[in-house]
Amino acid sequence: VAVLGGGSFGTAMSHVLGRKGVNVTLVVRQETVAASINENGTNTAHHPGGGASRSPHFLPQVRATTDAAAAFADAHFIFHAVPVQFTRDALAKVSHLIPPGVPVISLSKGIETSSLMLMAEVLEDCLGSERPLAFLSGPAFASEIAEGLVTAADRELANDLMELLASTNFRALYSPDVVGVEVGGAVKNVIAIAAGMCEGLGLGTNAMAALVTRGCTEMRKLVVVCGGEPSTVFGLSGVGDTFGTCFGPLSRNRQVGMRLGPGETLKKIFAPSSEVYGGVPPSRSIPKLVGKYPILFGVAAILDGKITPREGLERLMEMP
Amino acid sequence: VAVLGGGSFGTAMSHVLGRKGVNVTLVVRQETVAASINENGTNTAHHPGGGASRSPHFLPQVRATTDAAAAFADAHFIFHAVPVQFTRDALAKVSHLIPPGVPVISLSKGIETSSLMLMAEVLEDCLGSERPLAFLSGPAFASEIAEGLVTAADRELANDLMELLASTNFRALYSPDVVGVEVGGAVKNVIAIAAGMCEGLGLGTNAMAALVTRGCTEMRKLVVVCGGEPSTVFGLSGVGDTFGTCFGPLSRNRQVGMRLGPGETLKKIFAPSSEVYGGVPPSRSIPKLVGKYPILFGVAAILDGKITPREGLERLMEMP
Repeated sequence: VAVLGGGSFGTAMSHVLGRKGVNVTLVVRQETVAASINENGTNTAHHPGGGASRSPHFLPQVRATTDAAAAFADAHFIFHAVPVQFTRDALAKVSHLIPPGVPVISLSKGIETSSLMLMAEVLEDCLGSERPLAFLSGPAFASEIAEGLVTAADRELANDLMELLASTNFRALYSPDVVGVEVGGAVKNVIAIAAGMCEGLGLGTNAMAALVTRGCTEMRKLVVVCGGEPSTVFGLSGVGDTFGTCFGPLSRNRQVGMRLGPGETLKKIFAPSSEVYGGVPPSRSIPKLVGKYPILFGVAAILDGKITPREGLERLMEMP
Repeated sequence: VAVLGGGSFGTAMSHVLGRKGVNVTLVVRQETVAASINENGTNTAHHPGGGASRSPHFLPQVRATTDAAAAFADAHFIFHAVPVQFTRDALAKVSHLIPPGVPVISLSKGIETSSLMLMAEVLEDCLGSERPLAFLSGPAFASEIAEGLVTAADRELANDLMELLASTNFRALYSPDVVGVEVGGAVKNVIAIAAGMCEGLGLGTNAMAALVTRGCTEMRKLVVVCGGEPSTVFGLSGVGDTFGTCFGPLSRNRQVGMRLGPGETLKKIFAPSSEVYGGVPPSRSIPKLVGKYPILFGVAAILDGKITPREGLERLMEMP
């Protein structure tokens, strides 16, 4: 298996597969990162501030390289773990190196801001309509017990993937609804920003639960508008992932919301870091897509500085 | 307004109404409790171990009494805040004191173990089919900002209630689906026990999010079987209340699960207290009602000592 991208998703997937004894080649951009992983078993570049405790130890089954051609040549599966906004650039450099017929499985979720495309559309655009594609969604897979959702137009590919991923710690379920899964994955980050704002304003769990519940209703409406199945939202990729992101260990998106809530600016929050917060681009893209969604619209208006988080919340409470 | 029952729900509702300037009479069983509320503004009996800090201060708009007849005689609305398993006994003593036409609004949720009836059925059984009934559900209303769900067959009564309850801190929404709301309110406590077990076993947020999500799917199936609307589960009384209970401040049901998870027995957990944990009776009643629900069944089997929490989880992970 080759994994493209050495961020948190690529690293976590390497662990899940490495633990099962699968040989994994992690394709990274920098030689120093590859050397750090291969020589010390850690990715120091990935957690510069966090120290060794935050950087997981790589298993011997996982090797890193900057040589995508070599990594892809032997791969039976290629996992794509590059954030959505950088996907087009990253694939432009390496897509010609992927042998015909080898499936590409996306671990990234979101909406490309420049095109308003979902990952499924971006990948087809970059890799051609012949390339077998699959998407993994659901609560993030770390070292805990978790369930994930495999979605693919090709059921046989989905079955192969579920077999590849299944372990006592990780259980992969199948959904045929690529659109429903993808929309859920993008929208949950926006809901997480809103939930974080609620937390940052100190409004308590009840208010947050109400907000997140409404957010899921907007998610369901958006899935229907985009041509997906509303029942998908009830599953791991919708409600499940939203539960985990809004109430689990602090996600980056929720953290952005928590700082925005009491009045910090987006500029200040992003200044010290080049990290990508997955919820910000979809927060701005979704309102361009369709219809009227008070929470999804509200988060966009707040991010654009048009209203304060408190005003957004008051508008929500005053809605008929 | 008269509120029957001085437990946590009755107390919280007295606060919500008292804050709006509504005159509330809280009907309690013991003279000492009534005296404590009226003289000291606190209910010391209700939080014997918790000290004054856990016992909220009652507003001057809220008076307590043991005289149900006097309290009900002037009431425009009567809130029923007695736990479901004690409802029949409590109402047998006072139902004849409720003037004709005065609506009764239930704050309690669950399934009566002896009859397998939902609160809506128990109340109709005790108060007659002519009595206007309504039900309040959704994330519990404390001193935080919250949303609640009013459900009633009579839309006019629901409107009156929403007006009575609405404030800057509390927003009441309407659902016509009494069955869907009631089933959600009973099932979420069972899910909270399961979520607590997951927590008690130290399995992490991802596993818990997956479990809770599946629990909501079982809730939806059960709502349909009982004749409710599946879309109701998406709202405050279903997913919303479940969010709050499973991920918010530790609920009693989640606490039971957290102790059961690592191996404590139900007997030991309940020994020092006479408190009612709303999830235990429905955990045992729901499997008697209908069909196959792995989580709802699993919790019952664990409570009955047939399998351990870890075995229950393994069964769940191994399901086809």
